[in-house]
Amino acid sequence: MIKGTKRKIIIDCDPGHDDAIAILLAAGARESIELAAITTVAGNAEIGKTTRNALQVCEMAGILDVAVAQGAGQPLVRMRETAPSIHGDTGMDGPKLPEPRLKPAEEHAVDLIIRKLLESDGDITLVPTGPLTNIAMAMRREPAILPKIKEIVLMGGGTFGNWTPAAEFNIYADAEAAKVVFESGVPLTMMGLDVTHQALVTPAISAGFAAIGTPAAAFVGELIVYFREAYRDVFGFTDPPVHDVCCVAYCIDPTIFECRKLHVDIETKGEFSYGMTVIDQTGVTGKEANVNVAFELDFGKFWDLILGAVAKL
Amino acid sequence: MIKGTKRKIIIDCDPGHDDAIAILLAAGARESIELAAITTVAGNAEIGKTTRNALQVCEMAGILDVAVAQGAGQPLVRMRETAPSIHGDTGMDGPKLPEPRLKPAEEHAVDLIIRKLLESDGDITLVPTGPLTNIAMAMRREPAILPKIKEIVLMGGGTFGNWTPAAEFNIYADAEAAKVVFESGVPLTMMGLDVTHQALVTPAISAGFAAIGTPAAAFVGELIVYFREAYRDVFGFTDPPVHDVCCVAYCIDPTIFECRKLHVDIETKGEFSYGMTVIDQTGVTGKEANVNVAFELDFGKFWDLILGAVAKL
Amino acid sequence: MIKGTKRKIIIDCDPGHDDAIAILLAAGARESIELAAITTVAGNAEIGKTTRNALQVCEMAGILDVAVAQGAGQPLVRMRETAPSIHGDTGMDGPKLPEPRLKPAEEHAVDLIIRKLLESDGDITLVPTGPLTNIAMAMRREPAILPKIKEIVLMGGGTFGNWTPAAEFNIYADAEAAKVVFESGVPLTMMGLDVTHQALVTPAISAGFAAIGTPAAAFVGELIVYFREAYRDVFGFTDPPVHDVCCVAYCIDPTIFECRKLHVDIETKGEFSYGMTVIDQTGVTGKEANVNVAFELDFGKFWDLILGAVAKL
Amino acid sequence: MIKGTKRKIIIDCDPGHDDAIAILLAAGARESIELAAITTVAGNAEIGKTTRNALQVCEMAGILDVAVAQGAGQPLVRMRETAPSIHGDTGMDGPKLPEPRLKPAEEHAVDLIIRKLLESDGDITLVPTGPLTNIAMAMRREPAILPKIKEIVLMGGGTFGNWTPAAEFNIYADAEAAKVVFESGVPLTMMGLDVTHQALVTPAISAGFAAIGTPAAAFVGELIVYFREAYRDVFGFTDPPVHDVCCVAYCIDPTIFECRKLHVDIETKGEFSYGMTVIDQTGVTGKEANVNVAFELDFGKFWDLILGAVAKL
Repeated sequence: MIKGTKRKIIIDCDPGHDDAIAILLAAGARESIELAAITTVAGNAEIGKTTRNALQVCEMAGILDVAVAQGAGQPLVRMRETAPSIHGDTGMDGPKLPEPRLKPAEEHAVDLIIRKLLESDGDITLVPTGPLTNIAMAMRREPAILPKIKEIVLMGGGTFGNWTPAAEFNIYADAEAAKVVFESGVPLTMMGLDVTHQALVTPAISAGFAAIGTPAAAFVGELIVYFREAYRDVFGFTDPPVHDVCCVAYCIDPTIFECRKLHVDIETKGEFSYGMTVIDQTGVTGKEANVNVAFELDFGKFWDLILGAVAKL
Repeated sequence: MIKGTKRKIIIDCDPGHDDAIAILLAAGARESIELAAITTVAGNAEIGKTTRNALQVCEMAGILDVAVAQGAGQPLVRMRETAPSIHGDTGMDGPKLPEPRLKPAEEHAVDLIIRKLLESDGDITLVPTGPLTNIAMAMRREPAILPKIKEIVLMGGGTFGNWTPAAEFNIYADAEAAKVVFESGVPLTMMGLDVTHQALVTPAISAGFAAIGTPAAAFVGELIVYFREAYRDVFGFTDPPVHDVCCVAYCIDPTIFECRKLHVDIETKGEFSYGMTVIDQTGVTGKEANVNVAFELDFGKFWDLILGAVAKL
Repeated sequence: MIKGTKRKIIIDCDPGHDDAIAILLAAGARESIELAAITTVAGNAEIGKTTRNALQVCEMAGILDVAVAQGAGQPLVRMRETAPSIHGDTGMDGPKLPEPRLKPAEEHAVDLIIRKLLESDGDITLVPTGPLTNIAMAMRREPAILPKIKEIVLMGGGTFGNWTPAAEFNIYADAEAAKVVFESGVPLTMMGLDVTHQALVTPAISAGFAAIGTPAAAFVGELIVYFREAYRDVFGFTDPPVHDVCCVAYCIDPTIFECRKLHVDIETKGEFSYGMTVIDQTGVTGKEANVNVAFELDFGKFWDLILGAVAKL
Repeated sequence: MIKGTKRKIIIDCDPGHDDAIAILLAAGARESIELAAITTVAGNAEIGKTTRNALQVCEMAGILDVAVAQGAGQPLVRMRETAPSIHGDTGMDGPKLPEPRLKPAEEHAVDLIIRKLLESDGDITLVPTGPLTNIAMAMRREPAILPKIKEIVLMGGGTFGNWTPAAEFNIYADAEAAKVVFESGVPLTMMGLDVTHQALVTPAISAGFAAIGTPAAAFVGELIVYFREAYRDVFGFTDPPVHDVCCVAYCIDPTIFECRKLHVDIETKGEFSYGMTVIDQTGVTGKEANVNVAFELDFGKFWDLILGAVAKL
């Protein structure tokens, strides 16, 4: 963990099991993370569901003072795609939580993102863990935010796909928005499948959460039970990957990850490759690097960080 | 002219010579048109220029009580394209006008469009005469506006192109936005090149404006002098077409136009046909009609309407 | 008719009602046309059917000394598409003809085209009235034929479509082959829908064929009866257009047609415009003209030519 | 090595340093391989150069009784792309060889492939080590060959690219041809970059060739010296991969390779992914497997086979 710094972030998410754990990590790492806001987007489920799930997670995590603003219910251009096979009907099936008493902010997510950025000293990192619709809309609605964004640490893409052979779900769900973000010139760090598929909840890690013995840890345990089954049934994984958590972990301690600065294009025209992050690993395009792409993760440091943070909730 | 009705419209424009005349027509037809707002978009020129031009036209037309809100400076997804070969460096070359004293509204065009629609009784017609970026952004930002839009009467597309062999400038400049709008389910009337190329300023019409003898008519005259030359040099036209004016004319008196309800798709993937409005004139696709496409114009009624309106300014 | 010249042609066809009449025209205009060969291609129907139909038409027309070579049964890259809604199950429904006694040549159409061209003095015009598969295959198989081709006079494309809103059937059925041919640098004359939809069999023309009183004229009459119904039912035409006949008529007397030399690209990537001939009518692309595009037809001269030729059979 | 069987192959190649070694392997493994023919295609260099190189390699390898037929000089649809940065101006820079005395066959490669297959008992394996133009042309020219092809063992594609970030050179150089071949239904084994990048000529392997002490081994040594430098300079490899050799090695002893039967689509529409082999490793598309994709190679067995075969020449 980097001493003495506290990173201010906005999590833009579509909870989602792994989004939920990402929020819990942020909540438990208050000495490293200042959570400026949470915004929601349609993705793993419809927008009403991801917003409700975000509010429930906030209550569970004791995040009571942070605005949760609802955002885009549809992709920028294309028709909506959700992922009920992975996240269930509610978008966060598994744990049984009461209806949240917290209410979403009056402000639209896009407006909140713009306002926070314009009011800032350029110290806000955006952490999108769902489709990039809100971020792209904010960039197009108010280009003045571009120089204000410190960094975007996003979950999406990879050198291979999961939703199609070539495309990862978040990018596939709104490739046009991804194109806007990847071409924006803003510093980007990309947590793609190459690294998130290393962020696996092994049985030992599950046992670690069980040993904590708090309601928050039990909640994580319930999320993982459901997610383990979904990943086993749909993708044949033994242990489920907590993709989105990588983004928050990176914000807390980037040394957990090995990254390379590379050029990445977003494919929006392909017949079989729509939504692909075309990563130039060898420099063959001659184009300048626009993305810091994560490839490796220190498994021990990663889970120590998360278990430690959840234990504090 | 339809008696006893007054159509409430928002003109979303990128003036532009023909946009300017469209605004003048709306201003001169106050018994038929209630101008709820003017919003601007990048297109014929950069956003700062189209906004300044809109303000200048408002002053010239005596429109002093209508909000002019600046909108999107870039297309939804793609890079910006402008049309200096047609509209000159300022976007409205020709007439020399003083810097406007009117100021744009504080509100962003997209927010204004959303607010006006949500506050309305569903009686507002949107009249986009530039790229459809603002309209698409508003639709994605607040889907609740969709049932509130009475109609969209837009200038764009056609069975042939002008900016490429297949695409008209407004659609080509933001085909992804056009796709959003054309697939929105909102009632659309499309003034494409098929009809707008009939809206020609012949020497007789120019003489008609000259005969009016007011500053507003002189301003129109100066616009036309420049536009005539540009259209002659770039496209080889003898007389220039005032594309955008057709939209406002249609709002005042739809009987000027012959239209057909057809299915129209927007091409966003083609190598040589990006931005094409693919119009199914024979029903071969079997898809339901989504656009009321104008094909014919009553030349006499059209110019009588405009000359009459300008004479009132 | 051009005096003293006799044009040597290879008809590459997929009969097809209008292909059949095109062959009859060639047969009846022996003073103007030397029919070097007939080759067949899948298109209006499967390859076996179009070959059988070609042989039947040859027998009917008294063409007993010309090689009929069967060609490609599938498009160059894409999957096959046929047109039973227009040409019926046999590809030439309507007239009842005996099984042909003529046999197709041993040689494949592509080999025959290559051989004839290489053996020639550069005086052969190719007349493709179906998809361009054979021609493209010949060009790729033996590039040495390119400078040997005097001209290609093809039926296909147009500023609008019939099989989709943007694409005419022949080009749509094998757009990749069309791309090869249109980019080949060979002189091309294109009889597209703009002109072929003027080549209509009005009742007066039908009466003209009936008045001839020969078996060949009666055969044409039967083709037209069927074709009239198909075009009425599928496309809502009063009178059917004999597309392919325009190509042979042009070879006999080009003065029947008004053409313009323009740049034409073939769209192979579009979502809604695959197979479109993107015709640059205004020079907006700045690309050099590669096609002589027919736009107008002298109705009287056209039908006089055909009625005269059929009467000689 | 599989005892008692002898595999009959046609090598369709564009030599090319690694193509050359592939031919030498086939020549040295006469107890396992019956070389039915060699055909050439444009790819690494223009067709005249790849044919001359093939003839030179045959002379060097003592292959004096096998037809070498020249094939396609251009891709099926797109414009030609060659690889002088990797293979030099001649397509096989490095070794200095005399002009070949052998002559190419009179027959075109496509005709030879068709004839050999039609004459066969279905026991011929095609081994394309260049772009798939000839194979696709043969399939389209004579579909009756499809059930006669025992297998196609090709070099091309992979889960990543080398010519672009998404595409390997052979597939990129003619993606439309690859589409035809991959959709043909013929049994395919694909040696893509995943496995060929394991077929590296380490210094120890180079030393192995040097130790043989024959002209053929010296020739291989010279090829490798040039190829090592090219791969180091262009791609930053320490040791160069002999891609094409994998195909012949697989024909001799498939147990050298670990393969998986998967569905593979060819991307021909993408903006950044043209020529990509989209490999469905997880079954997410639900489409049936059409390709046996090689992923792993037994380094020791692989080089033992090649060194042994070259030593016999």
